[in-house]
Amino acid sequence: MAVKKMNVAIVGASGYGGIQLVSLLRNNPNYKINYLAGNKSAGLKWNLLFPFIKLTNDQIIQEINTNAISDKCDVALLSLPNGISSTITPELISKGIKVIDLSADYRYKSLDKWKEVYSLEDKIYKRNDYDLCLQSVYGLSEINFKEIKEANLISCPGCYPTSSLIPLIPFVSQGIIENEGIIIDSKSGTSGGGRDPKQNLLFSESGEGISAYNLINHRHTSEIEENLGLICGNKIQLAFTPHLVPIVRGMLSSIYGRLKDPGLTSADCKILLENYYRKFSNIKILQEDIIPSTKWAKYTNDIYISLKVDKRNGRIIFISVLDNLLKGQAGQAIQNLNIISGISMNDGLNFTSFYP
Amino acid sequence: MAVKKMNVAIVGASGYGGIQLVSLLRNNPNYKINYLAGNKSAGLKWNLLFPFIKLTNDQIIQEINTNAISDKCDVALLSLPNGISSTITPELISKGIKVIDLSADYRYKSLDKWKEVYSLEDKIYKRNDYDLCLQSVYGLSEINFKEIKEANLISCPGCYPTSSLIPLIPFVSQGIIENEGIIIDSKSGTSGGGRDPKQNLLFSESGEGISAYNLINHRHTSEIEENLGLICGNKIQLAFTPHLVPIVRGMLSSIYGRLKDPGLTSADCKILLENYYRKFSNIKILQEDIIPSTKWAKYTNDIYISLKVDKRNGRIIFISVLDNLLKGQAGQAIQNLNIISGISMNDGLNFTSFYP
Amino acid sequence: MAVKKMNVAIVGASGYGGIQLVSLLRNNPNYKINYLAGNKSAGLKWNLLFPFIKLTNDQIIQEINTNAISDKCDVALLSLPNGISSTITPELISKGIKVIDLSADYRYKSLDKWKEVYSLEDKIYKRNDYDLCLQSVYGLSEINFKEIKEANLISCPGCYPTSSLIPLIPFVSQGIIENEGIIIDSKSGTSGGGRDPKQNLLFSESGEGISAYNLINHRHTSEIEENLGLICGNKIQLAFTPHLVPIVRGMLSSIYGRLKDPGLTSADCKILLENYYRKFSNIKILQEDIIPSTKWAKYTNDIYISLKVDKRNGRIIFISVLDNLLKGQAGQAIQNLNIISGISMNDGLNFTSFYP
Amino acid sequence: MAVKKMNVAIVGASGYGGIQLVSLLRNNPNYKINYLAGNKSAGLKWNLLFPFIKLTNDQIIQEINTNAISDKCDVALLSLPNGISSTITPELISKGIKVIDLSADYRYKSLDKWKEVYSLEDKIYKRNDYDLCLQSVYGLSEINFKEIKEANLISCPGCYPTSSLIPLIPFVSQGIIENEGIIIDSKSGTSGGGRDPKQNLLFSESGEGISAYNLINHRHTSEIEENLGLICGNKIQLAFTPHLVPIVRGMLSSIYGRLKDPGLTSADCKILLENYYRKFSNIKILQEDIIPSTKWAKYTNDIYISLKVDKRNGRIIFISVLDNLLKGQAGQAIQNLNIISGISMNDGLNFTSFYP
Repeated sequence: MAVKKMNVAIVGASGYGGIQLVSLLRNNPNYKINYLAGNKSAGLKWNLLFPFIKLTNDQIIQEINTNAISDKCDVALLSLPNGISSTITPELISKGIKVIDLSADYRYKSLDKWKEVYSLEDKIYKRNDYDLCLQSVYGLSEINFKEIKEANLISCPGCYPTSSLIPLIPFVSQGIIENEGIIIDSKSGTSGGGRDPKQNLLFSESGEGISAYNLINHRHTSEIEENLGLICGNKIQLAFTPHLVPIVRGMLSSIYGRLKDPGLTSADCKILLENYYRKFSNIKILQEDIIPSTKWAKYTNDIYISLKVDKRNGRIIFISVLDNLLKGQAGQAIQNLNIISGISMNDGLNFTSFYP
Repeated sequence: MAVKKMNVAIVGASGYGGIQLVSLLRNNPNYKINYLAGNKSAGLKWNLLFPFIKLTNDQIIQEINTNAISDKCDVALLSLPNGISSTITPELISKGIKVIDLSADYRYKSLDKWKEVYSLEDKIYKRNDYDLCLQSVYGLSEINFKEIKEANLISCPGCYPTSSLIPLIPFVSQGIIENEGIIIDSKSGTSGGGRDPKQNLLFSESGEGISAYNLINHRHTSEIEENLGLICGNKIQLAFTPHLVPIVRGMLSSIYGRLKDPGLTSADCKILLENYYRKFSNIKILQEDIIPSTKWAKYTNDIYISLKVDKRNGRIIFISVLDNLLKGQAGQAIQNLNIISGISMNDGLNFTSFYP
Repeated sequence: MAVKKMNVAIVGASGYGGIQLVSLLRNNPNYKINYLAGNKSAGLKWNLLFPFIKLTNDQIIQEINTNAISDKCDVALLSLPNGISSTITPELISKGIKVIDLSADYRYKSLDKWKEVYSLEDKIYKRNDYDLCLQSVYGLSEINFKEIKEANLISCPGCYPTSSLIPLIPFVSQGIIENEGIIIDSKSGTSGGGRDPKQNLLFSESGEGISAYNLINHRHTSEIEENLGLICGNKIQLAFTPHLVPIVRGMLSSIYGRLKDPGLTSADCKILLENYYRKFSNIKILQEDIIPSTKWAKYTNDIYISLKVDKRNGRIIFISVLDNLLKGQAGQAIQNLNIISGISMNDGLNFTSFYP
Repeated sequence: MAVKKMNVAIVGASGYGGIQLVSLLRNNPNYKINYLAGNKSAGLKWNLLFPFIKLTNDQIIQEINTNAISDKCDVALLSLPNGISSTITPELISKGIKVIDLSADYRYKSLDKWKEVYSLEDKIYKRNDYDLCLQSVYGLSEINFKEIKEANLISCPGCYPTSSLIPLIPFVSQGIIENEGIIIDSKSGTSGGGRDPKQNLLFSESGEGISAYNLINHRHTSEIEENLGLICGNKIQLAFTPHLVPIVRGMLSSIYGRLKDPGLTSADCKILLENYYRKFSNIKILQEDIIPSTKWAKYTNDIYISLKVDKRNGRIIFISVLDNLLKGQAGQAIQNLNIISGISMNDGLNFTSFYP
């Protein structure tokens, strides 16, 4: 292992995704951070910006340069705003660098779908990389690990889709809940909005209150629908509502569906879920009536799921919690990095968890 | 008006409901707080406990005593734990005192239903006041104001039911949305859990995280179902999930339904809602895509509602926000007090609202 | 009173200071908001931006224009970033408009001192209004009300100075505590940093943690030293440390001094403070060992002060709390507006205070 | 190492101190948790209470029993309320068990001093263990490691004292700052108040506000004074003020002193501090004007210190931040456990630190 340390580039290093990637990799014996790049922070020393997440070799954050990346690295982890990733990914792939992208740029099989959903970005970045979209593998680690293993380009899921798809996939793919009428009511901490200063994310604005946003047409709706649809082979239309809550990290999704067989109990459904994910120690299915807090998952790469059936009418509710910046973002990226590196998926991702 | 100041008793004065009632009434020219009572705080001076909500006459909090209440007061506002209210309400009513009860004791027409839902309390308080339950009027002010005006006993709605029923009633009562499949996903600040110390409500436990609780069988489910059912004349079964979020005050309910006529637009539904509540200035219907924060309603007696229709499939989502201790509790009690006093419903309830 | 409503301009309307001013004046019978202006929000409708703080006449926020202000208004309330105020105040004053300035531009008698302390702003705004600085009255309402009454230009104190000077002035001006060795350790909510998006004020950055900033050389140090010095007639050098805490509104200052006469007790000092401020109902001196929370003062124009003497050595500590956007900013501006309008200082500033 | 795993008892397991100890030891290869005990949680399964901090062998929390502890363990870590520890420590010591106590019971050399400061507890627990108090070593790991190594009873410092003493000791012990006039203004998260439900620690009470408490006479004042006095050989009287801030974990102390030699610069003092602690990687001295947030230290066993000198008058301010439950409590206990076990002090205490 010590012989074949993989060289990794982290691009977009001083955003929240990038910071997590550095934290996850800096003491990881399997990888070496060999290139740090960023737009706003280029030219600055990492250790000066982040004296509490020190790198032993005091690296300077570089301008984004694909040649430098391909010279120095085997894999590039891109944590960039939507659209920007597509300006360097084709070149990196053509240079033989594997790319793990944390943006939404390669999450749809169809670039036209992306252009429709990300229309603002489409106006800026005139993309034409239809093929790459088709090649890209959706990096939901526990579901797509086989395809991920062989992929050159992995597109990591959004945080909301991760928290929704993991509970839903076993039930939708096996036809246990109805495709119609699924409702996902999600609550996210503010760090999901990124580190660039925006008024609505100020403590003074988002603190001491809660609000919903992007009713009906949040972009992740289509991402969840597409991936659920791919799995069950049918078109799915669901309702997804994101909410902003005053916590820094954490995401809770409350997911409502209807069982086709109303005779199924909570216990039945729990067993079904456990069996589906029995190989994945980071997916934790809770005993009935043990309902998780986002704090349980904070600073871990785990997802906790609780479920309950309304015996009166066969409705089922799932509660899933995760850390939006780890399992919901950078932690899942490292799972994917482990998979393509032939390392056990959760290696380096088991953290001492403190409470409260 | 100055001639006929109504004398009011506040029972349960040092809980959050009671504190709000004192704040709402202490400078209100229509009422005089003539009796303060509490269990734990009996014998203590109000102004010593609450030097920041001073009463000009420095009252001592009394033991709960129905004779004293009937001697000194015209109306009793009861802000007591569930079950305790039923130990004094019958006596107060029989003495000719009007009672506005903030607990759940008289929210069901059927005492048997209460015994089923509040089974823990039922074991302690052997209730037999079937008649009072039948007599009691459900104090949803803008809906039941006519019945409230004539009532001797008003049972104020829970905070979750208030935030759910106000948006839903116009649509359910007029048969615009389907009775089947309504989902209410609510988020509440911690003050809804009261002022008695409980571990799960400690800052250390409930801070910096969010969680759901009482999946499927929260008691307010039946309260919402009963009152929605009474209005539409059908039995309603819905899904209700409460969540605890780290804010002190505020409640946001995300309510999902399906339009019977999928051709209705968001604009149509907004007009319908505006018309239904056009006489009530404290019910504020927002323009499409203006989505409220709980902070807008904090420290006010207003409820803000936003709605949006998913054109693809006729699903509708409502977002309602209110202050759980005012419109969700004590503010609504004062609306009801105003109604039975022949005063304009929102008198004394328009507060200077600050942001952020 | 109804005859002579004063016409007021609010400049910088969509910042936190401006929003407070609108909230404070929109239903105030003594004043009419006759002009709203702002830089970023110019051209937008107030009610669209702030549907929860509605103006009955739906005003459009204007570009800042001194002619329009002098045509339509008697007084201008300026809530602008430091430096910008000095670009319009001279003209407004020369047009006979009274100016109440919430920035730091006229807080020092000497413009040269301002240029030294606000050196960054000095580079942008080449000020030469030495005379205006001399004319300007420091708007600490309860201390300087006589001078304020006659002033054309009132410079409202910063929030930190307000919270520090009110407890200290009685003791320093009467020579009761030593001039040497005063320490002010202040804690502020995030709204003190304004509404312009800055990274350090994001919820994700400032939430769930506390930090000090600007050790030794925060600009308010010199403002406190100047005004304390003016009052006691000696040069004062003190230590002031601001801290950022995760609350939206509120400021707590812990102030340490040494009594010249170590025989004085807490009770003596409390009486002294009460006597000094006995005419001012918004300055609330607490009983010994009743220690206020910032929440007591939140959304009010009050300041609460607790003090205690260490009998062992004659050290005294004061705790003061206030709402940084009201008594610490816009509320004090309205006190000053009342004073120059010949209205009782606290008129329109007594708000229903809710807890928690 | 694998041969000689030390067997450890954790007593008071379900309080915040106990929970941290389990988190710190459950995967630590040097130790085996061989006994879990608690009062309120006795009889319950750990994994049911804490499904997010699982123990591989599903232990049941036991009644506190000194025989069982001495049968099964080499060391007992006591995380109990003040006073209770003294009811079992003498017996444990006499049975040859080493005790690391997290309470205040053995922090003073003189039991009489304890009886004076902890007078409430003294009334309940009639202590007479004068000798044990004398024997006990104050477990400030980086200062007293030599004495700790030989001790049978280690009394871990309070969180406030830890955050104050580490910055102050180098300066007081070497006579660099004056003994007179030291002021410590500390801010603590709510978890310092423990997990037992108390009204003032409810989210609704302590959220969205800040307050000071126990002015002048907080118990930790005497603990800091005693230990500073022992080190400098003089009696020290200082001012210490604790504040409660709405964060779960974290402590920031702002410490004010006066340099004897006002010619010393910030750089001089920084070097002095670095040299004093150069062997201790968990004590992190920051570059001038880099000021830490408590978030930097959260979920770590590190303490960050920044300092600055006021050139005008030789006053110095230190800012220290730490995690009150780790370096301020359980983490320091494990440092001491490592020391008595002959293991490197910080072994098992380097955690992946995430931001924000």
